[in-house]
Parts: sequence; structure tokens; C-alpha cells
Amino acid sequence: MRSLGASKVSLSSISSQELWEKSGRLTEGSAEVFRFHDRKDTRFLLAPTHEEEITSLVGSLTTSYKSLPLRVYQITRKYRDEARPRQGLLRGREFVMKDLYTFDYNVSEALKTYQAVKYAYTQIFDELKIPYLVAAADSGNMGGSLSHEYHFISAKGEDRVVSCSHCDHVYNEELADGKTHKFNETEESSTLPGFQTEDAKVEGGATISNGMWMAISHDGNTLLRGWYPKYSMQNGSTEPVERHVNSHAVKAIATAAGIDLDLSVENPKEKWTAHVQSRSSEQKPRVLDLYDSQVRVYQRPPLSDLLEEIGCTATDIEYSKLDRFPGTSNQLSLVRVHDGDSCSQCADGQLTSNPAVELGHTFHLGTRYSEVLQASVSVNQAVLDGSAESGGKSSKEQIVPMEMGCHGIGVSRLISAVANRLADPKGLNWPRAIAPFDVAVVPTKGLDAVAERIYDSLTSISVDTLLDDRDKGMGWKLGDADLIGYPVLVVVGNGWKKNQTLEVQCRRLGVKENVSMDSLPTVVEGLLSQL
Amino acid sequence: MRSLGASKVSLSSISSQELWEKSGRLTEGSAEVFRFHDRKDTRFLLAPTHEEEITSLVGSLTTSYKSLPLRVYQITRKYRDEARPRQGLLRGREFVMKDLYTFDYNVSEALKTYQAVKYAYTQIFDELKIPYLVAAADSGNMGGSLSHEYHFISAKGEDRVVSCSHCDHVYNEELADGKTHKFNETEESSTLPGFQTEDAKVEGGATISNGMWMAISHDGNTLLRGWYPKYSMQNGSTEPVERHVNSHAVKAIATAAGIDLDLSVENPKEKWTAHVQSRSSEQKPRVLDLYDSQVRVYQRPPLSDLLEEIGCTATDIEYSKLDRFPGTSNQLSLVRVHDGDSCSQCADGQLTSNPAVELGHTFHLGTRYSEVLQASVSVNQAVLDGSAESGGKSSKEQIVPMEMGCHGIGVSRLISAVANRLADPKGLNWPRAIAPFDVAVVPTKGLDAVAERIYDSLTSISVDTLLDDRDKGMGWKLGDADLIGYPVLVVVGNGWKKNQTLEVQCRRLGVKENVSMDSLPTVVEGLLSQL
Repeated sequence: MRSLGASKVSLSSISSQELWEKSGRLTEGSAEVFRFHDRKDTRFLLAPTHEEEITSLVGSLTTSYKSLPLRVYQITRKYRDEARPRQGLLRGREFVMKDLYTFDYNVSEALKTYQAVKYAYTQIFDELKIPYLVAAADSGNMGGSLSHEYHFISAKGEDRVVSCSHCDHVYNEELADGKTHKFNETEESSTLPGFQTEDAKVEGGATISNGMWMAISHDGNTLLRGWYPKYSMQNGSTEPVERHVNSHAVKAIATAAGIDLDLSVENPKEKWTAHVQSRSSEQKPRVLDLYDSQVRVYQRPPLSDLLEEIGCTATDIEYSKLDRFPGTSNQLSLVRVHDGDSCSQCADGQLTSNPAVELGHTFHLGTRYSEVLQASVSVNQAVLDGSAESGGKSSKEQIVPMEMGCHGIGVSRLISAVANRLADPKGLNWPRAIAPFDVAVVPTKGLDAVAERIYDSLTSISVDTLLDDRDKGMGWKLGDADLIGYPVLVVVGNGWKKNQTLEVQCRRLGVKENVSMDSLPTVVEGLLSQL
Repeated sequence: MRSLGASKVSLSSISSQELWEKSGRLTEGSAEVFRFHDRKDTRFLLAPTHEEEITSLVGSLTTSYKSLPLRVYQITRKYRDEARPRQGLLRGREFVMKDLYTFDYNVSEALKTYQAVKYAYTQIFDELKIPYLVAAADSGNMGGSLSHEYHFISAKGEDRVVSCSHCDHVYNEELADGKTHKFNETEESSTLPGFQTEDAKVEGGATISNGMWMAISHDGNTLLRGWYPKYSMQNGSTEPVERHVNSHAVKAIATAAGIDLDLSVENPKEKWTAHVQSRSSEQKPRVLDLYDSQVRVYQRPPLSDLLEEIGCTATDIEYSKLDRFPGTSNQLSLVRVHDGDSCSQCADGQLTSNPAVELGHTFHLGTRYSEVLQASVSVNQAVLDGSAESGGKSSKEQIVPMEMGCHGIGVSRLISAVANRLADPKGLNWPRAIAPFDVAVVPTKGLDAVAERIYDSLTSISVDTLLDDRDKGMGWKLGDADLIGYPVLVVVGNGWKKNQTLEVQCRRLGVKENVSMDSLPTVVEGLLSQL
């Protein structure tokens, strides 16, 4: 944060419901926000994030573009009334977040800020020396590639991140847009094609059997059926692959077709049947069939079983089908990426899909908050256009809403994700960047003076060292050190008594070696540089 | 906190209403607690302090006296729904507090802990180098002298602290017990004396005129009238002193007499009159007269005016009067200490009463929380009695509730109190202990290299130094440094150009002197040692 010139602030954990209503983020349905009122019935909330507060604060203090760029951050407790709090610090209702807010006077300055923040974030994650993925988090509707997520791959993760073996194509599965994408394809066609029926050739891998997946609209009137390749062959494989529907992709297609899907309904067909049988409105019940690009489209709708079941005829129902994304010529892709699928962004890559934990998020907000909360600066036209670094006095002054960014790192969640990732049956294992100490020196009884010499020699080369001088046995102390997870241990024991050697241990790298007092600093620094 | 061997913890700001009901601290009337519930209607609160949470946590983890003493602290946000939040950080509804909780296995160990904490607290306040008062905060009913408050004298303070010019008698005015105290007096008498009427001699300073002060009970049935010396002479003074009622003293007497006073009522007589005139219950309205020891007691109650006003006769009213504290032979003291009053603890001292800000509080809790929340340890009888340091194995094991202490420092309030105390019209003035930097070096343009030499020489002797290398004029930079309030400024300007001297400024000590580069470290250290 210092490298960005960001100033540390500390905003109240309590915010005002009125302010959040002004920004449009608090409605009756905002179930994740803890609300309360004070003794005078003023309505408050426990802030899950602080865009509203910081925008109105900065807006009230900043009048000229000369104060920009302005970057402020805090590391504070945030609150969210999670429907399913679980996995300890990984998804709690109180959590510690570092949140950075940035303010610029035009988009091009804001994009420079965004790139600077993205660089700082990769520096932070690099320092942990644990592999992470930076996933694009836009699908075109946020204004360009201006949102990124930072993930650890983890079996405990609730996201799924898809990445290519060859190019830098990385994205969160929930951002699947429901369209097929092929390398070198142009998406610009706006031709609305005719329907292709079973005579047409189906591209892509050979589908062995189809599956059908259902969902229902919020109003209960529309039953959506997705026809997808349940088993299909992959290039270069002889075993068929079982595929699953990506509900985010289906939702994207449905939304584009004007249908508001409710993915929380567990039995959509039963619910729709009940709706059809009890309906009083004049609106006809509707069935929409979506066809994945790998499924042949039936010329006659396969409705008969369903109609028989509910006691209707085809004229009682409004039926339609889609095999292209509404408004485009793109075919539909309803299924989740399977390991080994081809990449859509490069010729040679294969995709992998992994469960992942999201630890950070950078976001260009534009004027989403600054407009409604009146956070503006005056700037002269030449500066605004970028045609002059310090605008000529003759140029006209404009009042413009600030271009904002928000950028978070989940601090408590990161601690938990690192712990999960590196712990082994003996205990925790901390990366050097967040370890309580770099090195623990553990002497046996009677060797305290040697241990102190080691402590002094390591601290003199800026290694953050702990000397465990507690009055306990060596076995207990080593077990305790393993539990806590110091990156490196230096054991002063029998080796010293016999040969004046020290045992250096690093559980994470599988190292256990005897070294002399002289070579200790070099050995320790060599290990730490990998941790 | 480290000197006490205390471990840092971080408890949630959210606590459970159920837990607070178990300890008896949350009732319908607890208006100062912010409450809310989650989506499943579980009842939560924003914790103003954490005795309940830490007691149940430590109780669940600690089983043997061998883990004791245990001392844990945190520096976190706390919440209180103040009736009148005001003065910024001095009395806010969200504040930062350092709270320390201590656990011991018997009273004598807990008292050792208490003394150690008290010593640590005085060390903390000593470091600020601002005069403070340590006030006894018990009045005998908490089990000995086991609570102390730490105060700055401040015009913004809402407490009043009384201190003696001669002995260490210091106490918060709100702890006035309503009894007269005289040096060498024994309070043990339990004789219930007869009433002394106007023939009896009145001791103490000569009262010139009496005042009458009224309050009403919560149920509205009892009107309390306090007769006090409105003007009286002090020893050694020729001017009469105007005195005011200490409502805390009156409340203490009323409580001992079984009356629950409501001090928030602004017009007690009007309220009581309305009660008398509209009453339907069979309970007689009551008048209780309290007589300060310096007021002569009327043989016939001075009720006639009042009765006439409300249209009653004496038989409609239950009348009583008190000139002794219920259950003791102590006379009553209804008035606030006036500067110059004699001390009750020593022969020679005179008292002073000052407005003060409470910044810290140490408290021996005993088993108040550990009993109700079942936080116990096993300890063998010999250890418990203090008759053996490590108990013999033959001695019987006991399960005892832990003896606790809680000890707080108001961190945000302390920042505010220090700012108020030391600021002058030019800006803030921070004590070295909490200043952002010890020294700011402010060079004029072109002398950056000299400034860097100064920076290096000061940091090399562990002076925390800021170099203001911003591209601004000297006047602007000096004004900014004064506003921020660095303890010491080193100005590298014309003096250097002419005579190779540096100007050392310390606004708080009124210092502005030219020194050579060689003597700079000594001069700076000399100033810092006073700040």
C-alpha cells in the first residue's frame, strides 16, 4: 500500500442505512447486511465494505483535481450475515479485510491506477510464494478487462477457476457467458440465423448421450430445459467424459432471453406443474428449451411426456427453443469445463478447472458511487482530455464525478487459506512473509549460551529469530515449534555436544541437515529465500 | 502488556445476548447496548466490553491452576449506545479500548496480579509525561481498595476528581458516600442515635444560609428534600463559599434508606405534585428530608408551604427525616467538595476538585463472572491456602472459580485527551511516546543533502525522524509540521547557509535555538527526554 502512496484510514464499522439506500445497495432484500437501530431509532448497519462511506468522505474533502490521485486503505473488521457461515475464517460473518479505494479525475488516470494496484497485488501474492491464479472477472458488461480476482487453488474453495495450460486465459467459472467461443472466432456477427434441426452437422466432440437439466423462473411460469451432452468424447481420449451443466451459463442465456431464473428451486418441474395446474392468470405457461452446441436439435419439440404428465395439450403451453445466444450468432455452451477441454483463446492449450479460494479482488468502479453521492472535482478541460499535464489557465473548468476503484484482500481468509494449504499432520507451515518468526532456535538444557550466540548471529543479518528458552524438554519444544509452524528450526542438541554442529530443519522443504556455526547464516538464508 | 506476560487476543466485536443474560448484565433496561439479530433471529449485541466472552473462553480452555496466572489483552473497537455522544473521540459510540483480563486461582494471587497491573498502568501513563491522577474508585462495597481510575485533569472532563494537597487521598466525586468523614474517625459504630434537633451543636464550618434541593423516586411517590449549607465559611477564609449538592452522595443515602432515586427528572416537585393529585393507590405519598451535618435540624418539619401548595394536610403525607446515614452513626454530607476544604484522611491537607477525563480503570472482579459462567480450575488445597508453592500430591484437589481482574485503557479517548491537553493555536503537540515521529527535519530548497546527513545522524541514535522532502515552500512546510505536532523540528535554512547552524524548535517547551551539526544529537535528545 505504501508503494502506491496510499494513506491508511480507519472508518467506522457502523454505517448508515440511509446512505446505503442513496447508493441503491440497500433494499428490503439485502439479507446479507446486519441492521440495527440506536436508542433514537436511527437506522444503522454493520458495513460489509465501505464504498459509500469513503465516497461521501472524500467527496466532502476534495474539490480540485490537484488533490488526485487519492488512494486510501484500511485493515478493519467487516460484517456479512452469511446464509451459510462455515469453514472457520474462510467464510465467517465477521472478517478482517484490507480495502483500498482510489480516486482519479478521468478514465485514463483511473486505468493507470488500476494497473498500479494490480502490480502491487501481484507483489503481495508473490511474496507468499504459493501459486495463485489471477482470473479475469469481467464478461464485457463491466466496461473492459477491469476486474480481476486472486485465487489459491484449494479443495476447500467454493469457486471454480478455469485456466489454460498454454496461454494466460484464466477465469472464474461463474463468469461463463453461455456462448461457445472458438479460437480466432469473431463474435461480431449480429445475423439472427434460422434454426438448425437434426439434419445439420453438430460440431465439436462426439456426444454419446444427452442429458436434460431443468430450472424455473422466479414467477413460476417458465420451465427452462437445457439439453446438454451428458457423455461426450474429448480430443485424444478414448474414454467418454461425463459433463455437468454450468448453471451460471444457463442463467446468462436465460437473462438475455428475458427470463429471470430462480436457481434456488430444488424441484423445478414439480413447482412448474403445480403452477400450471393451479393457474388463474391468463398468461400461458411457458417452456423454453436450450440446446447446447453439441446436442442435435429436435425438429418436433419433445414435449409429449411432459404434457401427458400434467394433463395439458400443446396449445395450452407457449413453447420456444433456442440454439443461439439471443441477439448473436453464437451457439450455446451449457456445460462446465472439463479438464482437457480445448482453450478458446489459443490454438494449443488445454483447460483445467480447479476449486479455488478467492483472496483478493481489484475493481474499476468508474463513477458508480461518485455520481449518486456527489463526489466531484473541478478540472480544466485540457487536463481532463489529457491534452495538457498542467492545464492552461484559459481552459474551461469542468466539474466531474471522480473515477473510482476498489480493491480488497481478505486478510483473515488469507491466513486460513495459507494454513489449509501448507499444514501437514505435524502442524502449520507459514510462508516467511506472514510467519510469526523466520527461525526458532531450540536448545537442549545446558546449551543456552550457544543458543544465544546463534540468536545474535541471525538477528545481526536481519533474520527475525525466536529463542525458545522455556524450561521444557527438547521433544516438547520441537513438537510445539512444529505445531506453530516456524519456517526454519535450528536445533542445538547432541550434534553440538559431539561435533559442534547444529541441526537445521525445514519441514516444508523436507530438509534436515547438520551445519557448522559458521555456515549457519548462509544455510538459513538459502532456505528462507525459498519460503 | 508484555511486561505483564500478557498474550494478545482478538475477540469478536459481536457477542451473544444469551451469554450476557446469563451473567445478569443484559436486561430490558440496558439501553447502552446495541442489539440486533441475524437472518435466523439469533440475538446478538455489539460488545462494549468482553468479560463474558473471555470468561467463557478461558473457562473452556483452562482446567488446572498450573495454567495460571493467565493474562490476555486486546486492542479492539467497542460499542456503546451513549445517550449523549459528544466531544468527538472523547465520548463516542464506537471507540478503541485496550482491555486486559486476568485469571488467578486465589485472592492473594489475584492481588499480586492487581498490583502488577497497577504498576504497568502507571508506567504507561508516566511515559506520556502529562500529569495524571490515580483515584481510588472503591467506597468499601467492592471488597477493599481494589479499583483505581486514571485521570487527566481537563476542562473537557465529565468526571470530577478530588485530591489532597498533602496526602495521597484522591477520589472520583461520584464515589462520595454521603457520610461525613473526619481524620482519625472510626466508622465502626453501629449505634443508632436519636435525632438531634436545633438545640444540638452543629460542627464544621459556619453555615451562613441553607439551601434546599429536591429529587423524586422512580415510582414518583417519594419527594426527597436535601437541606444543605448553600453558603458557608471555610477555615482560614473570610469570603463565604457557595456550595452545591453532590447528587451521587444524596443517591447513596437514599439508596441506603430504601429509596430508588431518579436523578434524570428535571422538575421533581411538579412531578410529585401531579402524582399526589392524581394518585389512586392506597400508598401514602412520602416526603423525606435529609439534613447535611452543617445544617440545623428543624424540630417541626417545614412542610406547611408545600402542603398548602398541593392542597393537602400533614395527615395525607408520610413524612420522615434523616440526619444520620442509615445503619451508622455518621452524619450526612450532601455537598460537593469545594477547593480549600479540609482533607478527611490527613491532618494538614486541603482538597481540590478538578474536572477530569477518565482514561483507564483497573478492577479486581473476584468471582463475579467466573461463578455464573463456570470458569473454574482444579487446585490442591495446600496451594489454594498458599501453604505450599507446589502442593504435595497427598493434598486434596478442589475445584474453584477463578479470581479475575479487568483493566482498561481508552485508546481513542486518550488520543483525544492528549490532543486537547497539549494543543495550542498553532496545532497539535504530541508527547514523544505517541508522536508519529520524534523529529521532523525541514530543509529549504537546495539543502536536501544536508538534511539527509541530519536524518542519518538522528536515526543512527534511534531517534525516529521524518525528512520533509516535499516540493513545497519552507513556510508551508513549517506550518504543516506545527499542525501535525511533531515534538521537535530541525530547520535547515538560512542559518546553515550563513553559519552552518541548524535551528532546533520545540513549541511545547518554548525552545528555538541555533546549534551546530555536531551538537545536534545531544540537543535533540535533551529535548526529547522532557517530552
